[in-house]
Amino acid sequence: MPAFKTVRGMRDFLPEEANMLKFIENKARRVAELYGYKEVVTPVVESYELLAAKAGEEVRSRMFVFKDLGGRDIALRPEFTASVARLVATTLRTEPKPLRLFSFGTVYRYDEPQKGRYREFWQSNYELMGSNKPEGDAEILMLTDSLMEASGLKKYVFKVGHVGVLRGIFVQEGLEDTVQNVVMQRMDKKEYEVALKMVRDAGVSENCVNILQKLVKIKGSEIFEIVEKMKTVVKGYDKAVSAVENLNAILKLIVESGCKMDVVVDAGFARGLEYYTGMIFEVYVPEFDIALGGGGRYDQLIELFGGEPTPAVGVAHGIDRIMLALQMQKAEIETREKSVMVIPIKEELKGEALKVSRLLREADIPAEVEVMGRKVTAALEDANRRRMSYAIIVGEKELKENAVAIRNLAKREQKIVKIEKLVETIKGQNV
Amino acid sequence: MPAFKTVRGMRDFLPEEANMLKFIENKARRVAELYGYKEVVTPVVESYELLAAKAGEEVRSRMFVFKDLGGRDIALRPEFTASVARLVATTLRTEPKPLRLFSFGTVYRYDEPQKGRYREFWQSNYELMGSNKPEGDAEILMLTDSLMEASGLKKYVFKVGHVGVLRGIFVQEGLEDTVQNVVMQRMDKKEYEVALKMVRDAGVSENCVNILQKLVKIKGSEIFEIVEKMKTVVKGYDKAVSAVENLNAILKLIVESGCKMDVVVDAGFARGLEYYTGMIFEVYVPEFDIALGGGGRYDQLIELFGGEPTPAVGVAHGIDRIMLALQMQKAEIETREKSVMVIPIKEELKGEALKVSRLLREADIPAEVEVMGRKVTAALEDANRRRMSYAIIVGEKELKENAVAIRNLAKREQKIVKIEKLVETIKGQNV
Repeated sequence: MPAFKTVRGMRDFLPEEANMLKFIENKARRVAELYGYKEVVTPVVESYELLAAKAGEEVRSRMFVFKDLGGRDIALRPEFTASVARLVATTLRTEPKPLRLFSFGTVYRYDEPQKGRYREFWQSNYELMGSNKPEGDAEILMLTDSLMEASGLKKYVFKVGHVGVLRGIFVQEGLEDTVQNVVMQRMDKKEYEVALKMVRDAGVSENCVNILQKLVKIKGSEIFEIVEKMKTVVKGYDKAVSAVENLNAILKLIVESGCKMDVVVDAGFARGLEYYTGMIFEVYVPEFDIALGGGGRYDQLIELFGGEPTPAVGVAHGIDRIMLALQMQKAEIETREKSVMVIPIKEELKGEALKVSRLLREADIPAEVEVMGRKVTAALEDANRRRMSYAIIVGEKELKENAVAIRNLAKREQKIVKIEKLVETIKGQNV
Repeated sequence: MPAFKTVRGMRDFLPEEANMLKFIENKARRVAELYGYKEVVTPVVESYELLAAKAGEEVRSRMFVFKDLGGRDIALRPEFTASVARLVATTLRTEPKPLRLFSFGTVYRYDEPQKGRYREFWQSNYELMGSNKPEGDAEILMLTDSLMEASGLKKYVFKVGHVGVLRGIFVQEGLEDTVQNVVMQRMDKKEYEVALKMVRDAGVSENCVNILQKLVKIKGSEIFEIVEKMKTVVKGYDKAVSAVENLNAILKLIVESGCKMDVVVDAGFARGLEYYTGMIFEVYVPEFDIALGGGGRYDQLIELFGGEPTPAVGVAHGIDRIMLALQMQKAEIETREKSVMVIPIKEELKGEALKVSRLLREADIPAEVEVMGRKVTAALEDANRRRMSYAIIVGEKELKENAVAIRNLAKREQKIVKIEKLVETIKGQNV
């Protein structure tokens, strides 16, 4: 019989990795609570029509698409935003704004598998709907910082830009939306020469080409100097100037809040997705060149899904990548709690062993019972190998005195304890 | 534009329901920890071959099956056991036993949607691999009881049986496996007449038919009396007698452990799935007739997946159904924690408001910042409507004294508090 395997691009999380995944999930959920984001859980399977409505061609071609038994075109979600937008445009249509929504789960893309990239991967997703203010943008950046810090990352940098700057120039030059989108995609891939040729071919002014050439080189961590430079360069393009001012307001709020995030402002930064309308950002660690998360403002998105016009800003974090970064930065996650193995010295005492295990669990102490029918020495060896904290040996003689033997496995010390004192003995680490 | 909808049979969890789902998920994970089960996270997408290896025809025909872009036959998992068995037969092959594994997540079946039944649904899954002892079976029953209790269910009943009793009779009568399976399926559907006709047609003794007729009527909550009756009835069929003794040993351990679960023993109980080899059980609430969870012993399963012979016992719980039962039993889940809205009295103080919100969150207090640019009265109204606990109003005059105004929204009382005292004021509910 051939050994069964995971499907290409899919992964298993063994206990240690699963533990880390759940650790980050809990942090992400706590960050959501602390910032007032309510959780919604949407299905992994959505209609193809919904998921395709927002995705660019690139994402669309890499979706897991199929038909259900009823012949419907369905797909596995490649991200959360379409599902959340569906909710906001339908069930939650009349909810007062602001509406803060959080999701956590798996998403699916048919990418070539590589380090930190799987075809099923985990995301946390936060959307703030209804606010067009810079404090909304600042909040999304700050909560991302909170999650990175809570996860235990030691070093990470925010790359921040604003699609309104380039878009503002293009609009004033009369560039069509479709051309704008293609140019933005090229810029996202840092193919500036190709992008410049495209805008030149589209007939923009020579002044515009000069400005674009200067703009894509403006980048750095002296954020307010960079913003000043951008403002000087785009002078004359009113919408671009407003965009720079908006970026300035967002960054100013973050500094005023006392949040100490590392930020690099990049004027040539253009996230590929067509729907961004304002501030955009990504988070990086020094260890590798894939973003741990990214997002920005998309004020037209909810309308695209048939909802009321609703300004919105959001972010998605790649949990598998955060895990990889944590492993590379050798960050420590919470240590294991005390655990106990309960061993009956003979067949007839198995019920008593189960009784002791119940007592411990009711006091919130993890307890395993010997279920292999092994002798005490063999069971102790196993408990040692698995680095458990204590073994409790249930014997006839001690039971007559309502007591059991408790053994500190690391110290190799053992003593007799009354069953009624067992919980406080273990919680007080008094053995 | 047509409104987008969820795909038929799929559901959204809005914040209140998502909260309940996550509450039960946390309880399930804590039960796993308390009983020593390590979490593994396996993919939603598995090879069709793997998932079909164990599933009976009924489940197989209701799987979401499709091809990926590489032409592989893949499917959405209809349950967890096949994936866990894959792990145990491959990656975890050499892990010492016992191996206790826990999983939590979504599974997919193309069933007709109805109350408590969706095509995407949530399960918690526990598998104990390597133990063939009755204390293993008892543990799976006890942890199910722990989960039901921890979830807040007030009343639930375990229905317990043992496939070894019927199988033991069939084997001694020389009934072929394939016939046995079909008969067991009929019995699972309580079509006893059809089942009896089948075994009669297969040429079993008249004594056997009589015994089966008696057996399927033996059922009740006086568990040890019921077990005695079963033993008397199956006399002469040695394997069936052993099975009854095994069931007796499991139930005795549970009683000895002090666990007070409600149990009904049902001699005619036969879970449909072909792979059960020993004790089987399901949990019910009085409110409706669908099981909240079920499981049992399947000692040949790991071999079926190409692994070493490994006795195993496990259980899956239907989380959507537990939620439905909780709602019907009007069980209370944990109440909301205190929450705060931070409101700047003017534009220029937005940075200060963000600063105050950071201070609160760093002290683990949920805080939302006003992001709509509303006046204080409008923001307060919103905070009231959403039943938040406190509003903090950031004003110029108070800031000069390093203070803010804090308002208890329920009491409609307000006072000025130094920023450095803010956290202790809120935690001490001193306003």
